[in-house]
Amino acid sequence: MDNILVAKKKAAIAASKLVKDGMTVGLGTGSTIAFFLDALAKRVQHEKLNIIGVTTSFKTADRAKELGIQIQDIDSAPMIDLTIDGADEVDTELNGIKGGGAAFLMEKIVAKNSKRVVWIVDSLKVHDKLGQFPLPVEVVPFGSGKLITEFEQHHLYPKLRTGADGQPVVTDMGHYIVDLDLQVIDQPYELSRYLDGRIGVVEHGLFLDIADEVIVGSQQGVSYLRRTDLQKKM
Amino acid sequence: MDNILVAKKKAAIAASKLVKDGMTVGLGTGSTIAFFLDALAKRVQHEKLNIIGVTTSFKTADRAKELGIQIQDIDSAPMIDLTIDGADEVDTELNGIKGGGAAFLMEKIVAKNSKRVVWIVDSLKVHDKLGQFPLPVEVVPFGSGKLITEFEQHHLYPKLRTGADGQPVVTDMGHYIVDLDLQVIDQPYELSRYLDGRIGVVEHGLFLDIADEVIVGSQQGVSYLRRTDLQKKM
Repeated sequence: MDNILVAKKKAAIAASKLVKDGMTVGLGTGSTIAFFLDALAKRVQHEKLNIIGVTTSFKTADRAKELGIQIQDIDSAPMIDLTIDGADEVDTELNGIKGGGAAFLMEKIVAKNSKRVVWIVDSLKVHDKLGQFPLPVEVVPFGSGKLITEFEQHHLYPKLRTGADGQPVVTDMGHYIVDLDLQVIDQPYELSRYLDGRIGVVEHGLFLDIADEVIVGSQQGVSYLRRTDLQKKM
Repeated sequence: MDNILVAKKKAAIAASKLVKDGMTVGLGTGSTIAFFLDALAKRVQHEKLNIIGVTTSFKTADRAKELGIQIQDIDSAPMIDLTIDGADEVDTELNGIKGGGAAFLMEKIVAKNSKRVVWIVDSLKVHDKLGQFPLPVEVVPFGSGKLITEFEQHHLYPKLRTGADGQPVVTDMGHYIVDLDLQVIDQPYELSRYLDGRIGVVEHGLFLDIADEVIVGSQQGVSYLRRTDLQKKM
């Protein structure tokens, strides 16, 4: 197993230990979460944990069912006690970019309805400032060409995400993804407000003031980033 | 024909006269727009106008085709010269609420990409303050129950819009509609920003600083509301 996979797995196993019997658990999406689901399923089986999973993508829902983790729809589930998710990039203030896997809209909705949010990442994902990872924006297909032109005019370097067939990627919710190749995001809150106000933007991959803790895996083990009192969620 | 229909028709006919040969025209949705499409189609036929229509709903697209109005997709069409649309409520500052017909997301996208936006309404739609008409909010189905609970806690009196079959109405874009029964909206800009920032909200029916002119029909004829210089669009 290569170093990155070892790092992801270490973070995932550490996260699986945070789950307690009786919890409603938000289950993220992505390659690190795949390890987490395996680790969680083992605990559920061996320790007879009684938990409910709330999933953030069809893919995670299918995998959770295969592994025997009981799942429930977010709208019928109680408040989520703990959500474990990955992230594509994290800064030292626990803000992040998510959306490489195109599931960030559902991930954001689940996170927002969670008492506690923990991200698991490998150490290569942690940067002083966000932006090296292209920022995904989920948009309504209708008018998306015009919106991309507007982003170009604002020097946001947009690119419509396409699949191997050259066609636009369509999210589980039926939208397109536009990736903004920004390199460095100096003012994430301002950018977030700008994107929130754009007509046709459903959501974006900037996750600000959402994570409470980040478990950073490396080949050697795990370390933790925690929100200081000054950075507490509003 | 009853008074309201006469008023709608008068406004619609006045609006049809604003269209000039060679224009790309945004075509709204709704009962007043149905009269406008009829009047426009007559002009196209009799005066051999060469125009391109950009539609805001599947319904308007179907009707425009029936009437022989050439239409083009928003993303391949040039900048829209003039959009004619209805509104469910208009205040004296030319702000409005749209969305009774559940097409406001596409309507907002078309309006935003238009050089000039004219609304046509009957005189009963004009009020000093907005809010008598329930404000529609288009939301992602996933997590909509949780979002409605949040709106309730914020005293926004939300109600999921359902059809005759009791099932949620699904928009052309695949979303749900939540109507907020506010009665009076004292701070529309603040409410707009609040809704823009909510995760799971795709768009809302507050159209602020969008209309350039409103043609108000009554049984007697039409009158005009125009944006003063102080109220020019930003």
